[in-house]
Amino acid sequence: MADVSPPKWHLAHVSWFFETFLLGKHWPGYRPFHPDYNYCFNSYYEALGDRHPRPQRGLLSRPTVRDIYAYRQAVDEAMAQLIVQEQGNAAVEALVVLGLHHEQQHQELLLMDIKHILATNPLRPVYRADLAVPDLAAPDLAAPDLAAPGSAAPSAAPAHSSLGYQSFSGGLVEIGLDLGALPLDQFEGFAFDNEGPRHRVYLEDFSLADRLVTNGEYLEFIEAGGYRQPQHWLAEGWAKVQQQGWSAPLYWEQRQGSWWVMTLGGLRVMNPAEPVCHVSGYEADAFARWAGQRLPTEAEWERAASISLGPADFQQGNFVEQDLLHPRPAPGGTGLRQLLGDVWEWTQSSYGPYPGYRPAAGAIGEYNGKFMCNQLVLRGGSCATAHSHIRSSYRNFFPPEARWLFGGIRLAR
Amino acid sequence: MADVSPPKWHLAHVSWFFETFLLGKHWPGYRPFHPDYNYCFNSYYEALGDRHPRPQRGLLSRPTVRDIYAYRQAVDEAMAQLIVQEQGNAAVEALVVLGLHHEQQHQELLLMDIKHILATNPLRPVYRADLAVPDLAAPDLAAPDLAAPGSAAPSAAPAHSSLGYQSFSGGLVEIGLDLGALPLDQFEGFAFDNEGPRHRVYLEDFSLADRLVTNGEYLEFIEAGGYRQPQHWLAEGWAKVQQQGWSAPLYWEQRQGSWWVMTLGGLRVMNPAEPVCHVSGYEADAFARWAGQRLPTEAEWERAASISLGPADFQQGNFVEQDLLHPRPAPGGTGLRQLLGDVWEWTQSSYGPYPGYRPAAGAIGEYNGKFMCNQLVLRGGSCATAHSHIRSSYRNFFPPEARWLFGGIRLAR
Amino acid sequence: MADVSPPKWHLAHVSWFFETFLLGKHWPGYRPFHPDYNYCFNSYYEALGDRHPRPQRGLLSRPTVRDIYAYRQAVDEAMAQLIVQEQGNAAVEALVVLGLHHEQQHQELLLMDIKHILATNPLRPVYRADLAVPDLAAPDLAAPDLAAPGSAAPSAAPAHSSLGYQSFSGGLVEIGLDLGALPLDQFEGFAFDNEGPRHRVYLEDFSLADRLVTNGEYLEFIEAGGYRQPQHWLAEGWAKVQQQGWSAPLYWEQRQGSWWVMTLGGLRVMNPAEPVCHVSGYEADAFARWAGQRLPTEAEWERAASISLGPADFQQGNFVEQDLLHPRPAPGGTGLRQLLGDVWEWTQSSYGPYPGYRPAAGAIGEYNGKFMCNQLVLRGGSCATAHSHIRSSYRNFFPPEARWLFGGIRLAR
Amino acid sequence: MADVSPPKWHLAHVSWFFETFLLGKHWPGYRPFHPDYNYCFNSYYEALGDRHPRPQRGLLSRPTVRDIYAYRQAVDEAMAQLIVQEQGNAAVEALVVLGLHHEQQHQELLLMDIKHILATNPLRPVYRADLAVPDLAAPDLAAPDLAAPGSAAPSAAPAHSSLGYQSFSGGLVEIGLDLGALPLDQFEGFAFDNEGPRHRVYLEDFSLADRLVTNGEYLEFIEAGGYRQPQHWLAEGWAKVQQQGWSAPLYWEQRQGSWWVMTLGGLRVMNPAEPVCHVSGYEADAFARWAGQRLPTEAEWERAASISLGPADFQQGNFVEQDLLHPRPAPGGTGLRQLLGDVWEWTQSSYGPYPGYRPAAGAIGEYNGKFMCNQLVLRGGSCATAHSHIRSSYRNFFPPEARWLFGGIRLAR
Repeated sequence: MADVSPPKWHLAHVSWFFETFLLGKHWPGYRPFHPDYNYCFNSYYEALGDRHPRPQRGLLSRPTVRDIYAYRQAVDEAMAQLIVQEQGNAAVEALVVLGLHHEQQHQELLLMDIKHILATNPLRPVYRADLAVPDLAAPDLAAPDLAAPGSAAPSAAPAHSSLGYQSFSGGLVEIGLDLGALPLDQFEGFAFDNEGPRHRVYLEDFSLADRLVTNGEYLEFIEAGGYRQPQHWLAEGWAKVQQQGWSAPLYWEQRQGSWWVMTLGGLRVMNPAEPVCHVSGYEADAFARWAGQRLPTEAEWERAASISLGPADFQQGNFVEQDLLHPRPAPGGTGLRQLLGDVWEWTQSSYGPYPGYRPAAGAIGEYNGKFMCNQLVLRGGSCATAHSHIRSSYRNFFPPEARWLFGGIRLAR
Repeated sequence: MADVSPPKWHLAHVSWFFETFLLGKHWPGYRPFHPDYNYCFNSYYEALGDRHPRPQRGLLSRPTVRDIYAYRQAVDEAMAQLIVQEQGNAAVEALVVLGLHHEQQHQELLLMDIKHILATNPLRPVYRADLAVPDLAAPDLAAPDLAAPGSAAPSAAPAHSSLGYQSFSGGLVEIGLDLGALPLDQFEGFAFDNEGPRHRVYLEDFSLADRLVTNGEYLEFIEAGGYRQPQHWLAEGWAKVQQQGWSAPLYWEQRQGSWWVMTLGGLRVMNPAEPVCHVSGYEADAFARWAGQRLPTEAEWERAASISLGPADFQQGNFVEQDLLHPRPAPGGTGLRQLLGDVWEWTQSSYGPYPGYRPAAGAIGEYNGKFMCNQLVLRGGSCATAHSHIRSSYRNFFPPEARWLFGGIRLAR
Repeated sequence: MADVSPPKWHLAHVSWFFETFLLGKHWPGYRPFHPDYNYCFNSYYEALGDRHPRPQRGLLSRPTVRDIYAYRQAVDEAMAQLIVQEQGNAAVEALVVLGLHHEQQHQELLLMDIKHILATNPLRPVYRADLAVPDLAAPDLAAPDLAAPGSAAPSAAPAHSSLGYQSFSGGLVEIGLDLGALPLDQFEGFAFDNEGPRHRVYLEDFSLADRLVTNGEYLEFIEAGGYRQPQHWLAEGWAKVQQQGWSAPLYWEQRQGSWWVMTLGGLRVMNPAEPVCHVSGYEADAFARWAGQRLPTEAEWERAASISLGPADFQQGNFVEQDLLHPRPAPGGTGLRQLLGDVWEWTQSSYGPYPGYRPAAGAIGEYNGKFMCNQLVLRGGSCATAHSHIRSSYRNFFPPEARWLFGGIRLAR
Repeated sequence: MADVSPPKWHLAHVSWFFETFLLGKHWPGYRPFHPDYNYCFNSYYEALGDRHPRPQRGLLSRPTVRDIYAYRQAVDEAMAQLIVQEQGNAAVEALVVLGLHHEQQHQELLLMDIKHILATNPLRPVYRADLAVPDLAAPDLAAPDLAAPGSAAPSAAPAHSSLGYQSFSGGLVEIGLDLGALPLDQFEGFAFDNEGPRHRVYLEDFSLADRLVTNGEYLEFIEAGGYRQPQHWLAEGWAKVQQQGWSAPLYWEQRQGSWWVMTLGGLRVMNPAEPVCHVSGYEADAFARWAGQRLPTEAEWERAASISLGPADFQQGNFVEQDLLHPRPAPGGTGLRQLLGDVWEWTQSSYGPYPGYRPAAGAIGEYNGKFMCNQLVLRGGSCATAHSHIRSSYRNFFPPEARWLFGGIRLAR
């Protein structure tokens, strides 16, 4: 899969980032660790010269993992010195902070890529045999009762229904961040340039489902023929279904008449109570149409999050620190649950610039802006995201056909 | 080119539309003209069964053009009867009106496709030798003075500058149409479902360039190395530049040291005063960045159009009725010019549903909604569009890499 | 299909051949009919400059068929003059003769291509409604009794068996033609350079089947699972079966439980007595292995032909002059039948140069030699070949995956 | 490159061969080491069930190299027992011998693949830093004087010319081996099934160049524009030149104005006295035509070898045991040199069955026969071949476009 990089590439690339943008630019006379590593480990920064073609990343048997750890160590040591030397230099500190957040992103990509590499291996190797498994029994989900197409499900769901909707009033609201007011040179308080500027948007009244769509609900869609009925699908989504032969989420497989899912802990029997995961934006959209609902916009999601979430929610979300590396069933109760962690939530919003957005100058300006085309925004982080990395304003983005991220579905109406 | 259909296919397809949605559904006992024509001439309606694969449309030497004219005549005659019989049946009349607007769309596609077919022929055949040619001398454009990158060009352009900007106040405005209030069963007053519902959006203050970008201005971008500098481009746009070897708009070619452009009247020397045409959305976006500006959003465009345009503007625009089949230089004067006709104006807006949008039921519901992914909105119509087809709310859409439509650039800031 | 050219291309190309190699080189001051036709209608002669890419031949809506007939007429008239002027010029006369044989080859290609174009059209249009149809009843083939795998079928087949084998003694024999001794400037007596030099080869004793393999026999292979069993296939052949989904010869299709074949006279019920046609070299080879036999070598075929055939056989073969445009069942009787006409017979011989072979100098030298790679030789002509075009030494060649030629199977052992 | 497998795959595959064909079939109750390894490490044996797709071999991060060494050890130990148990069982012993020769083939493939993997790595890593380098100075090659196109070079080359030709009389000769007479169950004396049966062929008189074509001579071809002149090339070869941008042998690159070649000992300055290596069959053929000569046939090569070679030649050839892993300049002197070792010699012969050839029954029958299509025969072994593996009758085969084998050129006339 062309989007997947070998693990050692990530290890090297995040060191390359520090070497290139910090050591190379702020350490007079710094000599790169290896003259060809810029060529090997530049991901996409056109301003920094030629680079190894992405689809050939997997072919590099050299440098070895050992070489790369030596590279990391050398860069780490030089960075430790640079940080001391340049203390108080806000420009340097902002780049260091950016580098750390960049590394957090690659930590998640690393898990995504490892999962893909192992899942496409016919041996289905286990990455971590010691992962805790969320309980199969999740009583409050025993009777999934998704609002059927056409039915006007009440926004205050009755007690026996597991999926309710939380209503929000529309109006003129503000989303995004005022980047100028942020301490971008501090790890806490940092945000990416694509999260700003803060700006006004007008929202109609809307409702969000109070939890994520489950495997069990998604199975209903499969069994109802969802993958064989073009009417639920965007045209490009339907073309993908046909070309790729999609008939279930990525990593689902049938063995001896049961559905199994590949996890970082190996193959497990599919748990109907867990949030569905590894669906593309097309599948999320098709499921929502089939269910008579729609995906939220990113503004709706951010509005709901800014009203509903408190600091404790960021601690309790199923982020990478929980060390499950897999989404877990929604907790019991009412109210908006699972907004943070578990799975990235596909929105219907195309990834574009906020009004007044300006990318940073120089190569760093390629970080976000140039990808604002043919991608959808996802919100909320996943079980592979660091909780210190996420914000209500955080905008993740992938092409609508991407499935190897931990992506799932929250319905809106 | 996979998007281009042979002319006879368009001739047959628009008849097929009437046969399928009107005769087949509202004329009891109607027998199709030919049992296989549904397979041959269905464009993309999944609900109507299998269809001939699009890339193979060009391979059908049968039915012949003569056969297809016979088909059109038979359908036309039956439609004439049906219209009389079903007078007053609003559902039928709404479909007839839709069919007419559908045919107008294919009239434009026909011109686009003929141009592409002739322009890729090494003989560069002339489609119409009798077309009038807009005057090469366009004195008010003699000194193109595009705001240079980084310069803070005043929004009220000085007299000697050919490119000015018109300012608009932001705020909460309404765009789109209230479809329920429209007489959708009348040709005048019709709109497509994607133009509604009418809804509120919040706009920041903005300015639009008072005319289209010219060939001469675009040539400055080319000569400044725009096609060789990744920093101006969206990542996917830059990938297209590399893969396709783009170095100028489609249909431009150099012969004996001069630039020529292929038109429906044959090869002509490039006129620097004419609006640039046959650029992709990627090129439009890259040009705007290079010029230190941006593309408008569709809401900005519609807001400006709703304030600025009167009925006379729709008569005077360079639409297909002017029979130039080519954009013409901006008229002299001040104020917003060329909003209508000449070239479709690429916006930065992804094509998506307006809040509350619902596609029609049945196969007709595939008309617009399922394409709301990975496309950009274009506004204003072109020299190949019927003026009776266009509205301020009209939303055209193409993937950002498309170049064979008559697409050009209006700058915004 | 990339190998198929539009009919009008053939019409123009054969005139281009005369214009380029005769008029352009032997008529001082000759001005080409159109400056761009060399670009359009050069097939593969690298020495003659750039040419229109083959896969785009089908996209040229100009020149029209009418233009091309005008071109042919102009070239024909000039050629008539040239032939008179250059009477006795052996070099010119040899090129004229080559041009005529070249045109005969394109007459066959024209039929192959028309058949392919019509057969891939969902309407299955009929090329010639007036073609005679060989009789369905062919009593001597009522009990096909192909030698089963592993069985040691006697080379003198018993009376009740329809498929016999004719034995030939091996030894040192001569094949090919002594080109130097041929009157290459006369239509009769001409041969292509690849048919010489005459040379010695050593043959083991061999037997050839006394007629072609029939549809009925080939159907046994299909029904025995031949297309699902890799053991019969060359590795590249099996790969084609998988990639292309082959499950029967080209132009066979099942409708209402019966097999039909597309012919130039339209769809016909498959006649089990007719020779199987439109099989690739891979299918011919797989069938032969399944039957426990093999394909002949070209030297075996030529040896058998040189012993067995007399002038009358060339008159009586089912060539294009019979105007069936389809193979016909073997006549009754014994002895080698159907060696000429009906279908080209795939051999197991790779197409290569005979010892001492030298291509002609100049562009004409590209006629044959440069294709001597990755092709198999076929022998004997087909129902689409002119009988004046064929010789016992004639070497046709196609890649082993080609199916659109009229190609069939003769077994050997 | 799709033909290249990761080194660990070869390590596992050769063990799989013993496990499958020996342990699995001749050890009652043998349980495979791992149930999925047959799927992973079957190369192309269709009769043995599904297998991992070749292009995805490189994606298997599991089993690890350590796992595979454990697998090898387990298979080796079981094989050691089986060999003792089955002593005297000729069928088993023949399979063991076949397995050993199979492993020798993969030892050469391993070197080819490692070289390709390292050479496409931008770091150009060195496989073996300790390899001896043949001397740059090779005085008898100081004045390469290849017979120019069109010149009638005498077959007894004058003293000052470095490239001479050795003449051989033609006639009816025998080539190939009588397999039935061979002790196929002994390592010495073994031959592959494609080397037989022994049979007669008729040869014209011929001459072979008395040494291999050198880098220096090949450079003349490059500098004379050989890669830009279609007239030297087979049509498919020229297409490859264009598509792949070939302009020199594989592994040649220009740095600071000099030619370098990648070797298993790292980048070295190109030595004009060494045999040219890593040319495709197309390049070998084009070079020969440009030089006015041709490639030998395999029968000519084998005839010359059977006359010229004695047992000592097999010892002295530059085979893998010399541990140069690179071809070396021809020794001084006269007579046929370098027939064995250094580089495989492309012949003009398509790889096909000898008269009377029959593949073995069962899966082993897929070893050779099914590849007899679209490949050329190479003869003589290379610097990466074991000398105990090679015979005068040995037939190697690759598609004419293959370049990653150690393939070079001997001229014939």
